[in-house]
Amino acid sequence: MCTLVQKTDLWDFWIMTQVSLIDGGRILTLDTADGPKRFHAIWLRDNAIDGATRDPVNGQRLITLADLSLDVTISAASVNGDHLTLEFAPEQHKANYDLTWLATHAYDNAQPRTAGQLAEGVEAWDNTLNADVPAGDYAALTRDDTARRNWLEAIRRYGFAKVTNLPVENGNLYKIVDLFGYVRETNYGRHFEVRTEVNPVNLAYTGLGLQAHTDNPYRDPVPSIQVLSCLDNSAAGGENMVVDGYACALRLKAENPEGFDLLAKYTARFSYSGSAGVKLQSRRPMIELDPDGTLRAVRFNSRSIAPLTDIPFDEMTAYYAAYRQLSDIIDDESMEVIFKLEPGEAFVVDNTRVLHARKGYSGEGSRWLQGCYADKDGVLSTLAALEESA
Amino acid sequence: MCTLVQKTDLWDFWIMTQVSLIDGGRILTLDTADGPKRFHAIWLRDNAIDGATRDPVNGQRLITLADLSLDVTISAASVNGDHLTLEFAPEQHKANYDLTWLATHAYDNAQPRTAGQLAEGVEAWDNTLNADVPAGDYAALTRDDTARRNWLEAIRRYGFAKVTNLPVENGNLYKIVDLFGYVRETNYGRHFEVRTEVNPVNLAYTGLGLQAHTDNPYRDPVPSIQVLSCLDNSAAGGENMVVDGYACALRLKAENPEGFDLLAKYTARFSYSGSAGVKLQSRRPMIELDPDGTLRAVRFNSRSIAPLTDIPFDEMTAYYAAYRQLSDIIDDESMEVIFKLEPGEAFVVDNTRVLHARKGYSGEGSRWLQGCYADKDGVLSTLAALEESA
Repeated sequence: MCTLVQKTDLWDFWIMTQVSLIDGGRILTLDTADGPKRFHAIWLRDNAIDGATRDPVNGQRLITLADLSLDVTISAASVNGDHLTLEFAPEQHKANYDLTWLATHAYDNAQPRTAGQLAEGVEAWDNTLNADVPAGDYAALTRDDTARRNWLEAIRRYGFAKVTNLPVENGNLYKIVDLFGYVRETNYGRHFEVRTEVNPVNLAYTGLGLQAHTDNPYRDPVPSIQVLSCLDNSAAGGENMVVDGYACALRLKAENPEGFDLLAKYTARFSYSGSAGVKLQSRRPMIELDPDGTLRAVRFNSRSIAPLTDIPFDEMTAYYAAYRQLSDIIDDESMEVIFKLEPGEAFVVDNTRVLHARKGYSGEGSRWLQGCYADKDGVLSTLAALEESA
Repeated sequence: MCTLVQKTDLWDFWIMTQVSLIDGGRILTLDTADGPKRFHAIWLRDNAIDGATRDPVNGQRLITLADLSLDVTISAASVNGDHLTLEFAPEQHKANYDLTWLATHAYDNAQPRTAGQLAEGVEAWDNTLNADVPAGDYAALTRDDTARRNWLEAIRRYGFAKVTNLPVENGNLYKIVDLFGYVRETNYGRHFEVRTEVNPVNLAYTGLGLQAHTDNPYRDPVPSIQVLSCLDNSAAGGENMVVDGYACALRLKAENPEGFDLLAKYTARFSYSGSAGVKLQSRRPMIELDPDGTLRAVRFNSRSIAPLTDIPFDEMTAYYAAYRQLSDIIDDESMEVIFKLEPGEAFVVDNTRVLHARKGYSGEGSRWLQGCYADKDGVLSTLAALEESA
């Protein structure tokens, strides 16, 4: 056993700590200000950061699990400044661990497993967000890492953000995707035109609008990012609306916990076959949870939902009631953030989470948007790289 | 109540059936040769196929759930030839249902919920498949719908298939993607070169043997299809190997059911940050199940697995044992299908399921493959459209 008195310029988690070995060296304990944190020898060995274990350039692991013995033990442990040095037996491998790295990767914690919990950095919202719609100025996003980081952080947190002051030109939505990732091409093309010349004769139809929905739930994997960019919007109406699917799911859970469980427990079905050679079908829950209950995705699209055949007969009535309740919550104005895009404005939505809608439009003028899909891994990767370099 | 004597040229499920209404018209029962099948009035109303409910061209639903009353009942039911005609109250909506359609969409069945069950049309395999590696001739795939359907069906069933007799030219892998879908561009480009590099950003670009793995598990959504096309393979060694992740998971379940559950119940972590501005991270289980237990995905990559921090301390030892056991199963030769690609040959893998590997190579000669990603929705959609038109 040894005692560490941490240098004061490091995280105070380690201000005073001790290291000890228990269970014949199979477990190492660090006694910290936050209580004791235990690590298994196999975990420490597997996560050694040394040139023989991981490639120094790309960080990829050079060994496989078969190169390690599950019976590995720690034969010696010592603290040197801000590092822990371990020696493993029987292979006599030596490795150093940054104490701060160990603290941030400690797993000897209570791990919440509540259905509907939100991932770190994610926040549910309702119409109060109308007062502060997240947005980034295009020029700033291209030249200023802080602006880009804040904008990407808003997409992670709220699942959407606007872009303003784009050049008003055909295809400008690709400039937005370039900020974080790559276009996901689909049968709708690399991008698609959302363009309807207003015809006053058809006012009855344009007045229908579109219920808030996630796009392409019949696709698997679903496009996780959608970009909609406005090139013309002189028509009256046609506002865009976004609704937080996570917030709606959580409200359903509060009002009807069994209903929430039903929408998570059984798969819905979605389909689309509007073009020749295309017959897209998916089988996924409306509310998708990670194994630990973290909200992963919401799928909701009244136009492309297919017959529900995976719900047992005895639960179908309750399932439909929950589905209807979720639909009503989505339609509730208290959940809606509304903005009318001007030419040169666009918005990005996390399509695994945020529903979007369009109000009906009519009268003089026209409306022309362009849309495309991309993926969330690019958003989160670019954000993480910016956070790391900040 | 009425009796239907079915025309003999239709499915014999309906040879003799009766329709009755129970629970005040909230439930309709069809007595069939397969036993009674019940349908809820709300389900039938929601799935009406008529011009006011669904668009006759693209099949998309024109109404939202809010347009329907959950208290809908069936006020009248009659059978006319191969159709069931219903009238709903209180809205007095009338709709016809094809009896065969009703049979194929009946949900009043026992619905299996076994962890590890396989989806329809999916088959687990081991090295006995070496005797009959699925493959398609490129020219036939482009001009013959039956050849293309069989090849896509093999990808759905086995999670991989070869392509032979491609023109040996730079970029020929795009021709393969054109058979079913669209390239998923990533930070590795629209495609990437797999050949030995001096300062590799990824260990794939070395002569090292690689343990069987799924690609890019650190990406979310993961690319669900990978194409690898061979342009030069004169080096000794460098054979390709594929292993069925589903079969490995099922073998783990048979040998160690608790271990299987642990790998499905807790999320692993994967990461990659080999290039500037890229810091990809994911948090997903190694064995991913649908809510009903159907095997959805396997993620396994010894090079890019990140520290496991979502497993409770008390389960970490058992988790590592299960992870090691899965790794050993993956490395077991009895699970391996091996082939050496010749120039002009390629293979497609379902990257959510099938692991691929490369034997080490060195010495005289060279090896040049090109790879790219695409998505499984295109495979399944193209296949479904071909099946429908067959």
